[in-house]
Amino acid sequence: MNKQKLYIVKIGGNIIDEEAMLNSFLHQFAQIEGNKILVHGGGKLATQLANQLAIPQTMIDGRRVTDFPTLKVVTMVYAGWINKSIVAKLNALQCSSIGVCGADAQLIQAHQRMHPSINYGYVGDVDDVSVEVIQHFFNLSLSPVIAPIAADVNGQLLNINADTIAQVIATKLAQQYQVHLIYGFEKAGVLLDVYDASSLIPRLTHQEYIQLKSAEKIFSGMIPKLDNAFAALQLGVEKVVIGNASDLKDLLDCTTGTTITYE
Amino acid sequence: MNKQKLYIVKIGGNIIDEEAMLNSFLHQFAQIEGNKILVHGGGKLATQLANQLAIPQTMIDGRRVTDFPTLKVVTMVYAGWINKSIVAKLNALQCSSIGVCGADAQLIQAHQRMHPSINYGYVGDVDDVSVEVIQHFFNLSLSPVIAPIAADVNGQLLNINADTIAQVIATKLAQQYQVHLIYGFEKAGVLLDVYDASSLIPRLTHQEYIQLKSAEKIFSGMIPKLDNAFAALQLGVEKVVIGNASDLKDLLDCTTGTTITYE
Repeated sequence: MNKQKLYIVKIGGNIIDEEAMLNSFLHQFAQIEGNKILVHGGGKLATQLANQLAIPQTMIDGRRVTDFPTLKVVTMVYAGWINKSIVAKLNALQCSSIGVCGADAQLIQAHQRMHPSINYGYVGDVDDVSVEVIQHFFNLSLSPVIAPIAADVNGQLLNINADTIAQVIATKLAQQYQVHLIYGFEKAGVLLDVYDASSLIPRLTHQEYIQLKSAEKIFSGMIPKLDNAFAALQLGVEKVVIGNASDLKDLLDCTTGTTITYE
Repeated sequence: MNKQKLYIVKIGGNIIDEEAMLNSFLHQFAQIEGNKILVHGGGKLATQLANQLAIPQTMIDGRRVTDFPTLKVVTMVYAGWINKSIVAKLNALQCSSIGVCGADAQLIQAHQRMHPSINYGYVGDVDDVSVEVIQHFFNLSLSPVIAPIAADVNGQLLNINADTIAQVIATKLAQQYQVHLIYGFEKAGVLLDVYDASSLIPRLTHQEYIQLKSAEKIFSGMIPKLDNAFAALQLGVEKVVIGNASDLKDLLDCTTGTTITYE
């Protein structure tokens, strides 16, 4: 069986805050032919709003400890402002889209993270993704725009890492589709020197990643993203590319950014 | 042709803020058999957040003047926190639901309100509603939960009155369905004396409404709701009831609240 191609693009970081970069990205995203999914974060805007509301924020290993006031903030920012702003812009670009979070139509089933020593609060881990819901959207020619919030079986909203959501959806859909997963942010890709865009690694194998990581040459914020990238490849995703979201077209063609390969 | 029954329930006011009342309402909503739509406001939470962020709020005839910071607030509160909290709870009650705003899948087409003398900012008026999108949700056995935000053709988000959205959707769907429209809030219905629940008017005709209005016996906040109610009836909606959302079951049976009738 010839599988259909499916692009899953995750954006995060400054790309979302900077209107010009976001618009340039969305313009390129809207032009992708066929089925496509956009997963977004929005961490900086959430941090900003939490600061304005004097809600102290704690990050542990890149995860936001999510007490109840913080859950409200992230749900408002991710599933509200960012999600709907993106959807309205994509529709205006003739890319029919629908904004959802994991709770909608039970797209993502999750449970609250229980950690032996750290209380992450309302942080969730994904149990399953409903392929059917996504396929219904595709059948209606809608591109899903997914905010990283989900709910557990008791109706408790949970904050979920957007990189992980993109990976889990990519992995699940890899059974039916030829999935290309793109992690877009404001940097050129995986860099040997985080302050030097010319130190871009165009192709990163798992072995090289392990070596760079043990030599502490990988910026710590990149580690969860790269772990997700390699997991996706191992679980059937065809291609994973990391790079600057405003170069989306070239990332899709693998002519820029860092292509992640297992071997 | 025998039309299928469709319940459209709008909730607003304190019902949304008070967890016990909201849960009781959602419990009854989840038990409605067949197709149903929930439209929600969330004005008090939006006002609260705007106050916390020191964004001054101006109301003109019950409409919130919506400058850009206020647009952000209402989109976050309505389409984010309230919408997703309700969806997660309904799903946990075995009522499969999907939370959307008017921008999603271009469900509601709107334009910015242009008023000769008042600048309402990013307030929108509805041009059209996509019946197809709602029917797709019904076909998937999903109850739409609709936040009162929409977008114009240029991708500009707009703040829309939730009572009006409920009325416009009810009117549009009245062509295919036998629509019952319920306006639920924290009061028992239309009251002759707003401070006395025993002054409930069980049945209100258009002529009585005109008389009460000219005698200034209708609380001004009720006027847009009642105008919407009568418009809905005139445009084919079968039944309109206004009452306490936590008595939803009885409102559906018309054994409590105020039943609005044209004659």
